[in-house]
Amino acid sequence: MDNYSIVGKRIPHRDAVEKAKGSAVFTSDIKLNGTLHGKILRSPVPHAQIRNIDISKAQKLKGVKAIITSKDTPQIKFSISPTWADKSILVDKKVRYIGDEIAAVAAVDEEFAEEALELIEVDWEELPAVFDPLEAMQPGAPLLHDAVENNISKTMTMECGSVEEGFAEADLIFEDTFQTQAQSHCSLETHCCIATCSPTDDVKIWVNSQAPHPLRQKLSAALNIDAAKIHVATPFIGGGFGSKIDLEPAQAICVLLAKKTGKPVKIEHSRKEQFMTTRMRHPTISKLKFGVKRDGTIVAKRAEVVIDNGAYNSHGPAVMAYNNVMFSTLYRVKNIKYEGQLVYTNKNWGGACRGYGDPQATFAQEVMMDMIAEGLKMDPIDLRLKNANIPNEITANAVKITSCGLKECLTQAREASGWIAKKAGKKKYRGLGVAAMIYTGGGSIGSGFNYSGATMQMNADGTFHLLMGAVDIGQGSNTILTQMAAEIMAVEPEAISLTTADTDTTFPCMGTFGSRVTFCAGNAVTEAANGLKQQLLENAAEMLEANPDDLEMKAKKIFVKGSPDKAVSYAEIGAASFYKKKKPLVAHGYYNGPEDVSAEFDPATYRGYPAPAMVFGTHLAEVEVDPATGKVEVLNFTAAHDLGRAINPLLVEGQIEGGAVQGIGWSLMEDLQFENGEIVNPNFHDYKMLTIKDIPRITSLLIETIDPNGPFGAKGIGECAMVPTAPAIVNAIYDAVGVRIKELPATSEKIFKGLKDK
Amino acid sequence: MDNYSIVGKRIPHRDAVEKAKGSAVFTSDIKLNGTLHGKILRSPVPHAQIRNIDISKAQKLKGVKAIITSKDTPQIKFSISPTWADKSILVDKKVRYIGDEIAAVAAVDEEFAEEALELIEVDWEELPAVFDPLEAMQPGAPLLHDAVENNISKTMTMECGSVEEGFAEADLIFEDTFQTQAQSHCSLETHCCIATCSPTDDVKIWVNSQAPHPLRQKLSAALNIDAAKIHVATPFIGGGFGSKIDLEPAQAICVLLAKKTGKPVKIEHSRKEQFMTTRMRHPTISKLKFGVKRDGTIVAKRAEVVIDNGAYNSHGPAVMAYNNVMFSTLYRVKNIKYEGQLVYTNKNWGGACRGYGDPQATFAQEVMMDMIAEGLKMDPIDLRLKNANIPNEITANAVKITSCGLKECLTQAREASGWIAKKAGKKKYRGLGVAAMIYTGGGSIGSGFNYSGATMQMNADGTFHLLMGAVDIGQGSNTILTQMAAEIMAVEPEAISLTTADTDTTFPCMGTFGSRVTFCAGNAVTEAANGLKQQLLENAAEMLEANPDDLEMKAKKIFVKGSPDKAVSYAEIGAASFYKKKKPLVAHGYYNGPEDVSAEFDPATYRGYPAPAMVFGTHLAEVEVDPATGKVEVLNFTAAHDLGRAINPLLVEGQIEGGAVQGIGWSLMEDLQFENGEIVNPNFHDYKMLTIKDIPRITSLLIETIDPNGPFGAKGIGECAMVPTAPAIVNAIYDAVGVRIKELPATSEKIFKGLKDK
Repeated sequence: MDNYSIVGKRIPHRDAVEKAKGSAVFTSDIKLNGTLHGKILRSPVPHAQIRNIDISKAQKLKGVKAIITSKDTPQIKFSISPTWADKSILVDKKVRYIGDEIAAVAAVDEEFAEEALELIEVDWEELPAVFDPLEAMQPGAPLLHDAVENNISKTMTMECGSVEEGFAEADLIFEDTFQTQAQSHCSLETHCCIATCSPTDDVKIWVNSQAPHPLRQKLSAALNIDAAKIHVATPFIGGGFGSKIDLEPAQAICVLLAKKTGKPVKIEHSRKEQFMTTRMRHPTISKLKFGVKRDGTIVAKRAEVVIDNGAYNSHGPAVMAYNNVMFSTLYRVKNIKYEGQLVYTNKNWGGACRGYGDPQATFAQEVMMDMIAEGLKMDPIDLRLKNANIPNEITANAVKITSCGLKECLTQAREASGWIAKKAGKKKYRGLGVAAMIYTGGGSIGSGFNYSGATMQMNADGTFHLLMGAVDIGQGSNTILTQMAAEIMAVEPEAISLTTADTDTTFPCMGTFGSRVTFCAGNAVTEAANGLKQQLLENAAEMLEANPDDLEMKAKKIFVKGSPDKAVSYAEIGAASFYKKKKPLVAHGYYNGPEDVSAEFDPATYRGYPAPAMVFGTHLAEVEVDPATGKVEVLNFTAAHDLGRAINPLLVEGQIEGGAVQGIGWSLMEDLQFENGEIVNPNFHDYKMLTIKDIPRITSLLIETIDPNGPFGAKGIGECAMVPTAPAIVNAIYDAVGVRIKELPATSEKIFKGLKDK
Repeated sequence: MDNYSIVGKRIPHRDAVEKAKGSAVFTSDIKLNGTLHGKILRSPVPHAQIRNIDISKAQKLKGVKAIITSKDTPQIKFSISPTWADKSILVDKKVRYIGDEIAAVAAVDEEFAEEALELIEVDWEELPAVFDPLEAMQPGAPLLHDAVENNISKTMTMECGSVEEGFAEADLIFEDTFQTQAQSHCSLETHCCIATCSPTDDVKIWVNSQAPHPLRQKLSAALNIDAAKIHVATPFIGGGFGSKIDLEPAQAICVLLAKKTGKPVKIEHSRKEQFMTTRMRHPTISKLKFGVKRDGTIVAKRAEVVIDNGAYNSHGPAVMAYNNVMFSTLYRVKNIKYEGQLVYTNKNWGGACRGYGDPQATFAQEVMMDMIAEGLKMDPIDLRLKNANIPNEITANAVKITSCGLKECLTQAREASGWIAKKAGKKKYRGLGVAAMIYTGGGSIGSGFNYSGATMQMNADGTFHLLMGAVDIGQGSNTILTQMAAEIMAVEPEAISLTTADTDTTFPCMGTFGSRVTFCAGNAVTEAANGLKQQLLENAAEMLEANPDDLEMKAKKIFVKGSPDKAVSYAEIGAASFYKKKKPLVAHGYYNGPEDVSAEFDPATYRGYPAPAMVFGTHLAEVEVDPATGKVEVLNFTAAHDLGRAINPLLVEGQIEGGAVQGIGWSLMEDLQFENGEIVNPNFHDYKMLTIKDIPRITSLLIETIDPNGPFGAKGIGECAMVPTAPAIVNAIYDAVGVRIKELPATSEKIFKGLKDK
């Protein structure tokens, strides 16, 4: 065992007290003198041609300082990648979903801004709309984007081996179709930003972004302003779950209004806007075919997936790529085929959402695995162990796996949950379900980028300051990254102060997503800290007239090993560096990897996946179903995750518990419902989430596989924690009452109907 | 001549448009949600013992969130140096001037806060007070600070050579006494700050400070909070002139109120508070004795100076040290004696004010020089040339002089002003006056510190970001420091974005004072930029397969000399550093000097002065006096300054013109007047300043001596520009009408009385 003092400790979240006591400053808390309030006029219809926008009446309203329409915006479309760009900041001629941005107003207060919106007269011609992706693909369906035939934004085909040969070899074939629904991120904090723009186009924007450095690039591209003139700063952030990665039109609008008025402008989404017009989890229809041997070996698997994109691309194509990779990489299968279609519909557009296409793939695959186990009369855990991934292997679809603890996850979850005993003594209406998962544990360099930077310096008083591009959106990266630095510098984390996620002053970081921060920013921080440590030792060696290799760091002192009284304090080293040597101690770290990806990697199809590390996990649920109502109670929940190393078990458990709760919500109730393109439950009354009363006891098992490339061996956990929840729950429901749910959510109604149908 | 592209250019102030259009964000413009307003209860009497403070009624007032008295503050006294500390944040038992801080309130708005102040009941016993420093020094005078005998806070004696022997050698002895008055800084922006304090004592303060990094240290010491937990940020600053260097009690009070309430607290001085309770220029009484030879050689000089400290020390002892150094170092004199006494009085306390003791010394010495010239029947310029300092000399009082252009200043001002012709054809009521000066052109390491740091990095798009500790308070340092970096990187200054004066993210800088920024921060910036340039060249050499020495930088490209098509662009180098080499380009610079001071330097007496560079100058005024009223009109004004090199002649002229205007104001009208310790003109109606109508044509002469240690040869100018103004004006008045003003300001009344007395 490694003997660490700070790494591995259960240290509370650095900002816990500040947030609990209410003194933490979020974007919404900031106001500058003369700040105007921005509001956005949004389409009330799902599909229409705009003939004219008349702002003359609104302009006359007292208190209105600026109104902008597409005429005031650069005619540039955006997406997460320029190749997929399809969204204008403000629509030009056409609205494509209920919520599409038409115009925006800056006024002295919110009331004036809202009144002005009502006075803007839009003359439009409504167009036929399409809401179902399968209908949208039919010839003759209304087209959302002129150049896009059959509304298919993107297709993706990946094959390795030959599924046809595989199916021919198989003893048994299993086929079925699985559907998942839209989920809203439901961050406690809605989107909010304040922007200023100088007469020379120097922009400052305070914004709750999961990816401040890329946001700077995206604002630059969308607004035609040099990136170096844009300063993105991030106050405290109240959650993201993927919703705050992409450029949100409101952010660009905010800058444009600030530019036009010369005043600070603030735009804050209402909860209704947040539900209706920010991104959501893509609904999917996955048709699977698996070929297996009688011993459980999967010899071929195929997925045909239709992804409901909504009106615009955002992350859609990348979500499809992840849907493919995660489906294809889980389990050691030689013959795999993935065919994906990303389809436009006149609805709110999908985006990044915790798991990024993987929960949808995992739901389909892991329910299918349960059906296969049943078909083979095999224990579901044994079936998974039979096919489980192993360390240090390149998979058939060309993904390089380094550390891998999938088998340990499965066996330890089985042990901890009492699976064998409970299966043996099965109680009526009670059931157990299991599901496995794979995900990236450190982002991916598939887009060409996977960067995170850090700078660490020693203050004159011997304390440290750490600057990181990484943004803590509540998950705790500030705490655990500081722990890594503290371990290296041999101090308590409190001795290190932080600057994070500020595009002017921190080395860039690609953002908080893809479970990449612990791994990528962790590697940057450890590089910076180790560099600074080396400088400290060299300075101390000079001051002590000793060899750096003979020195030890402890209690904010450096001393010659075995001679604790021959010491120099950090404060002395700090003061000497500034005032005597006149060379402050500072070191940098920067990660952008992996360097080494499978030679078979093909970025067009995501055959292969250039991640620095993959993570694995198992969720195991015990449920009881009320036969009178179909209501499911989750009694016990076990979540085993291979995360390399738990830098802070307390925060890891927080991620796992949060992920499981979000996963159970998606399994049983969370469902963004549309009627004729309109979201009918855009509030916390009608959109059902788990409350504290619904949350079961969750047992977290931390499987430490010590990844060779991770900082202290660590890999990511954030997104992974909700990936296999839904199939575990659904499989448990089947075990309990024999009702197989193939279409999420597993509502009481569906189960009750299933019970009745039996 | 050096062939520079950017250095030496007349580039407008970087922030000019933003400030002119009103979009620049000053501290006062910032408001956080839930911000409370802080107000301070101040003593209405000049001297009293406090028996009791009863806050019970005020506490009951709705809207009041916290009230603090000395019981709530650490019992620590402060000053610019711990050895002189005499001021409590809130007074404990005694008030010592009208304005002394007694208690403070945080309330939901300003009205509640003011109402609460009125409800605080202070029970006191008034004490006899003393307002005149000469009276204060008498035995039996009321004592302000118990341990300080005769109210003499500090004395200073410096002698080099022997004045007695010098006087014995002299052909003629001149003796007289000169007096100067209090001047207010009159920054357009009053003191303002907003502080937040987390439950774990992490403090953030937005504040208009001239010295953010030292402010962090001072807040740390005064509040007993680790410096590393305090984050000082500086929005745009509306002038300082010395008033914003020291810790202002309101800043510490603001943090204490934020800590007590857990809410953001804002304190903004009213203009009246600014006049009455922030620092002012120290009044002085200088008794001089000069011994001269008939040829004009000064053989001995002595100054006995009493400095009116007001109630507390602040910068007082250091101002006295500067008064000594600048008096003693100007002119090549072998026998010098300086005796200073710093005396407490029950008035607003003096502090740093443009020139820092030098204008007072220079007024006395340079009027005396005019009297000597008259006595010797010698041209005043010739007298000064006779005794002028020269380059590369260590003076009798042990000051090391590197570059020195005093003689050039004198001769070029003589030439430009038409001195000889005008003297020859003297018109009635018109007169010419001249005065010379010396000052530091780069701060001093006398306190042990004279640091400035900078970091420069290349963005991925090939633009640059420069982080500097230095704070631009309006003088234009952001513009000229960026010019230096731009010159080195061979780009326009617009290609460099800035972060400045933020204690968390920038290398520390001691602050904006002592005409040190151009020199010290300039040296840091050029070191960082040269380091980054080297990295650029090395990267380009690798990419071009060339030798770094064979490369040239131009038009954001690096190419092999003579082969302009073999080139790599900055954007390519930037991208490669982040995405290919994975090592961002960043370099640091840090200055803390000079290393090399005169061996004779004695910090106790300021015999010697450890500055990296000294600057020299000459002001030459032409005035007309109205014999009917004594009113002075300044007709022409010539200001010649040795500033090493003018990095930006436009901004240098701005400094010189501003300095001259402030100097003329002090000469003729600016006068903070006290009656029984109360300032009777604390507003812009009664406190007279020059308006645009009063400002003469000012001819600035930039004498470029190219200092060997300055960045591009530059030295400072900011403070220097008002140092010799008053004696030039007063000498011109004497030349015009024969009235010798020895007590500033030279009001119409005094001149009219002088004319009548003749």
